[in-house]
Amino acid sequence: MADDRSVTSGLTALIASVAPVDRSVAADAAAHHGRLTKPPGSLGGLEALGIRLATIAGRAIPPLPEPAVVAIFAADHGVHAEGVSPWPQEVTGQMVANICNGGAAVNAISAASEVEVVVVNAGVATDLEPHPRLRDTPVRRGSANLVGEPAMRPSDAERAVLLGAEVAGELIAGGARCLLTGDMGIANTTPSAAVIAALTGADPVAVTGRGTGIDDETLERKIAVVAAGLRRAGLHPDGHGAATCPGRRAGPVDPLVVLAEVGGLEIGAIAGLCLGGAAAGIPVVVDGVITLAGAMVAAALAPATIGFMIASHRSVEPAASAALDHLELDPLIDLGLRLGEGSGAALAYPMVRAAARIMAEMATFDDGGVADSDASSGL
Amino acid sequence: MADDRSVTSGLTALIASVAPVDRSVAADAAAHHGRLTKPPGSLGGLEALGIRLATIAGRAIPPLPEPAVVAIFAADHGVHAEGVSPWPQEVTGQMVANICNGGAAVNAISAASEVEVVVVNAGVATDLEPHPRLRDTPVRRGSANLVGEPAMRPSDAERAVLLGAEVAGELIAGGARCLLTGDMGIANTTPSAAVIAALTGADPVAVTGRGTGIDDETLERKIAVVAAGLRRAGLHPDGHGAATCPGRRAGPVDPLVVLAEVGGLEIGAIAGLCLGGAAAGIPVVVDGVITLAGAMVAAALAPATIGFMIASHRSVEPAASAALDHLELDPLIDLGLRLGEGSGAALAYPMVRAAARIMAEMATFDDGGVADSDASSGL
Repeated sequence: MADDRSVTSGLTALIASVAPVDRSVAADAAAHHGRLTKPPGSLGGLEALGIRLATIAGRAIPPLPEPAVVAIFAADHGVHAEGVSPWPQEVTGQMVANICNGGAAVNAISAASEVEVVVVNAGVATDLEPHPRLRDTPVRRGSANLVGEPAMRPSDAERAVLLGAEVAGELIAGGARCLLTGDMGIANTTPSAAVIAALTGADPVAVTGRGTGIDDETLERKIAVVAAGLRRAGLHPDGHGAATCPGRRAGPVDPLVVLAEVGGLEIGAIAGLCLGGAAAGIPVVVDGVITLAGAMVAAALAPATIGFMIASHRSVEPAASAALDHLELDPLIDLGLRLGEGSGAALAYPMVRAAARIMAEMATFDDGGVADSDASSGL
Repeated sequence: MADDRSVTSGLTALIASVAPVDRSVAADAAAHHGRLTKPPGSLGGLEALGIRLATIAGRAIPPLPEPAVVAIFAADHGVHAEGVSPWPQEVTGQMVANICNGGAAVNAISAASEVEVVVVNAGVATDLEPHPRLRDTPVRRGSANLVGEPAMRPSDAERAVLLGAEVAGELIAGGARCLLTGDMGIANTTPSAAVIAALTGADPVAVTGRGTGIDDETLERKIAVVAAGLRRAGLHPDGHGAATCPGRRAGPVDPLVVLAEVGGLEIGAIAGLCLGGAAAGIPVVVDGVITLAGAMVAAALAPATIGFMIASHRSVEPAASAALDHLELDPLIDLGLRLGEGSGAALAYPMVRAAARIMAEMATFDDGGVADSDASSGL
């Protein structure tokens, strides 16, 4: 119990360490954009992204978010026993090895985007081969089956969050100035849908998707599994919004309870990475639905974390859009990706870098020798 | 006349040198994607892009499209006199200097995306300072005002196209394996709208936009200018689709006539870059509405050129979407950009690189030590 109390006190300190982004610099950042040698507003979403980076850094001209690291948190899920994925559970460990060896999609994309790849074992069920890229520090060996029992103890959930925050701290101490979230865990779109349903109040049927590719029958089963887990935990009966559901616990839902009851170890660690990045004032680029589940937990623990998040892409998983809407994040890319691993975050990262370089490196009308437009004349 | 005949014969040879992409490798490329260690189809548009690169290269696993160069073609426009832009015409030359000196948006984005920047004077009205990045070889000093007379002589139009193709050849000889298109020319959204209207049959009111940012009154004038130019040239009366317009010349519209009557020198050179890239079997990444006008001219001259094009983004200019639809190109990014310069092409380039690296560098299920899914069981 003393141990669990220290975990809780660590989490309380982490949450308290997240200060809001500095919105007071947004006007100066926008004014700076207006002085750059281009028509005002002509870079659209890239300008908004640059201003967001400014508020994250608390400087009108933000520092370059370089170098970047994608932290891929891996875990297994007891709910795999319900037949919610076409992949054998041992693929989690095999894919960790594949990522360590550079053979996964996230490796190829990260190479193209100049992003370093690290893997963190947050809770894989099998033994993993040591590798320089792997931080083999699981909270436990996989979660329990959320249909019949809580996925993990509350103290495991807290430890997972603290693990992610610790990784954030280590990566930032090692020089990282932009953190990208990634995940690996067979069956993990199921707990992600459950977490997002619980935290947004969305209906399980509206947020449960086909993950890596399942047929109609499996999708029906997966929806039933998500609904059953939420019902068991008293978080969300099927078919009704969480906010109004009769079995719902009083008051706002506790994100740690959601994480412990229906979440996953990598989801908790991703929440921790978001919190740790935010606490250090570093942008955190979120990926698809699993990392958005983690982002939702982080946002529920410390709402100020949202200001440090950058949404990389709109996954085809329906829970991803529910989470993006809830967090009010506009993704940079919409290419029908549904892979995870941090692949979308790595794909979008060069745009984040470009948004910052535009603000740091472009000439202004004053110093660029370029005449400004005469917009007031209407010409 | 002998000179003009040699121009025409050069263009005929250029057009004849464009062979179609090799669609026979698409099935092998798709099969290769299916063997990579990821759920099939989970990379969405990136997989389609990789297969496109394969057909361009004629190899199931395409070579990396690296290094990349963005060629920015600059020119001035007589139609500027009609008050269609809020910017003074001399800004074209000033922005060429700004790009040469590294201060423009395309420089910052290209630095983030690892793209080399070169500038080509295709027809700027003012003298330009020499610079190592600048190829100062204008076809003529600006175009004429397309409202009252052809923008240029047919031989100028052909020379502009050949200039672009020559630049493509030089860049490829210098090692470039991916060409990005860019433009700089105050008022050039006006001829671009006219070219796209003439080649798609779209109504001028549907394809004329606010460019770098103009008010309602200027937009009305700009629409009238586009319509007047098309009417004068017998290419397109206002308010009717080109295919059915009574004043329309018989048969399919000649893209060289369109370019000469209502186009621009940079638009012609961009068409030539597209043709030259296609002739060499190199992917060409198109940017916003001006480069799409060039791409439309190239496609009309040699339809096989389209297969070598990759659309980087969906500009907010309405003519851009008309051209993308006509060329059946799906853009990678939709961030509300409307800057030009090749900025969107440079922004999207890391995705092109990623699509190729995925195919070249990812492990397969056979060699990655990863179990495949049992999709047939329905699990």
